Amino acid sequence: MSASGRITGVLSPVVTPFKPDLSPDAERLVRQCRWLLGQNVGLALFGTNSEANSLSIDEKIELLDRLVGAGLDPSRMMPGTGCCALPDSVRLTAHAMKLGCGGVLMLPPFYYKGVSDDGLFRNFAEVIERVGDRRLRIYLYHIPPVSQVAITVGLIDRLLAAYPGIVAGAKDSSGDWNNTHAYLVNFAGRGFDVFPGSETFLLQGLRHGAVGCISATANVNPGPIARLAAGWQVVDADRSQAALDRIRGIFARYPMIPALKAAISHYGGDPAWAVVRPPLVELTGEQRASLVAELDAAGFTMPGLKG
Amino acid sequence: MSASGRITGVLSPVVTPFKPDLSPDAERLVRQCRWLLGQNVGLALFGTNSEANSLSIDEKIELLDRLVGAGLDPSRMMPGTGCCALPDSVRLTAHAMKLGCGGVLMLPPFYYKGVSDDGLFRNFAEVIERVGDRRLRIYLYHIPPVSQVAITVGLIDRLLAAYPGIVAGAKDSSGDWNNTHAYLVNFAGRGFDVFPGSETFLLQGLRHGAVGCISATANVNPGPIARLAAGWQVVDADRSQAALDRIRGIFARYPMIPALKAAISHYGGDPAWAVVRPPLVELTGEQRASLVAELDAAGFTMPGLKG
Repeated sequence: MSASGRITGVLSPVVTPFKPDLSPDAERLVRQCRWLLGQNVGLALFGTNSEANSLSIDEKIELLDRLVGAGLDPSRMMPGTGCCALPDSVRLTAHAMKLGCGGVLMLPPFYYKGVSDDGLFRNFAEVIERVGDRRLRIYLYHIPPVSQVAITVGLIDRLLAAYPGIVAGAKDSSGDWNNTHAYLVNFAGRGFDVFPGSETFLLQGLRHGAVGCISATANVNPGPIARLAAGWQVVDADRSQAALDRIRGIFARYPMIPALKAAISHYGGDPAWAVVRPPLVELTGEQRASLVAELDAAGFTMPGLKG
Repeated sequence: MSASGRITGVLSPVVTPFKPDLSPDAERLVRQCRWLLGQNVGLALFGTNSEANSLSIDEKIELLDRLVGAGLDPSRMMPGTGCCALPDSVRLTAHAMKLGCGGVLMLPPFYYKGVSDDGLFRNFAEVIERVGDRRLRIYLYHIPPVSQVAITVGLIDRLLAAYPGIVAGAKDSSGDWNNTHAYLVNFAGRGFDVFPGSETFLLQGLRHGAVGCISATANVNPGPIARLAAGWQVVDADRSQAALDRIRGIFARYPMIPALKAAISHYGGDPAWAVVRPPLVELTGEQRASLVAELDAAGFTMPGLKG
């Protein structure tokens, strides 16, 4: 966290464990979040990799309550609260504020395609006005490969002008450095914190003014990613980045969410972790064996997970 | 409705009226649905044109209760109940069944892209199993330009084999006649009712075994569309189809949902109807004037709407 009290550093879009009946497993989630915090990784709950849009609003509220109730620090939490329906976004965001979450990560409404910046501005403005809390810190979530609805530079410019301080930053999961760079060049000097959506751009991002990253693979490789974020100006940073890239490269060869869960399941010795909700499917036995073989060969470990 | 008790003919994905505070306006919706039923058009509530994904589940349940409570016939209703989150789809579908709805129109979960037919099969199967009601009639909703997730012939084949009778048909909003034709050729003989997603394909569809259509413009031009569907074998069908196409063509030159609402607002003499929820935006004054001028020039009317 920065001097301003803003969330910085590395966050994990925490994968959501399910019971055999596909209901969310709050106890396993609490344990996983505690492990991540212990590795100096913050909690971007209810992100794309959390299967967040496969959860109902009630399920998300219940999980958030359980996490805070278990004593986990809400100031380290940046839950995803952007939904297709305005009342859902308002309800979830207000609840996150009530619990004291450090920020919220907000998808644009993603059902309608080809919508205008006017309509998106109006969506975010309505959420902000209805939540009506000056402590709110919104991080805009740009992930066009999945949402198909972009957070443009023009939209950010309007939102920052209308809601300075509340519009606090963005996660850029475009996978396009040019877009991350455009965010940084235009807004890093205006109190707008940019998180690349993968550690692939961690070092490059930090060197250009990013404040950390929010990355799928921070679910499984949290320690090394967090250490680079914290020590990039003193350690042999390029070598550390290359080591992160090798692990990321392995996961990128599999369907990401099932692969993350398979790794947690395998290295944590907990088969229950492999379950995903439809429309996703678990890795096949063959995929799982191949993933583990590749990770073992790379010397990958998940220290402290088992237990 | 057919002899089998199945929903057939023309349905409208009924546009949802909002109050100035953007909350759903149940009274106006009841009036609109009554007008549509009076034109022999069924109620595909909570479709894409209903801004359904901009409504919370609670709002949809409340609206459905109000419609049935107002005495509208639930057997003429095919509400959209397919959500991103499995528990939401189950809850909404079970509620529609409890109310006696003639069917439900089901989107695939649409957040994750590139998902497998296995994952989609599992999604629909879980909904069917959890709702657990033999009266359930599911119409699969194929609208790849918006959902970006397709209902393939292979998926339908698997679902029909597993749940004959319950998997009752599809709405095809691909705008691709070849896809509609493939649905018809493969499944029309297996108790699977195909509705093209626009009256553009109404006559062509009926001639190849479709049972009607579910079309945005049935919100504004219900009578003529329903008359062609009912009388296509006896009237001068091609000429009627051409007349429908002219009106559809006008609406297609504007953002569809705001244009439908602008037309209802103008021809119904009720300015409140123009309101849309973000991320959509209303037509500009200029767009609205131009739309009305085009419709007037085409002799367009909405008989019986004003009142």
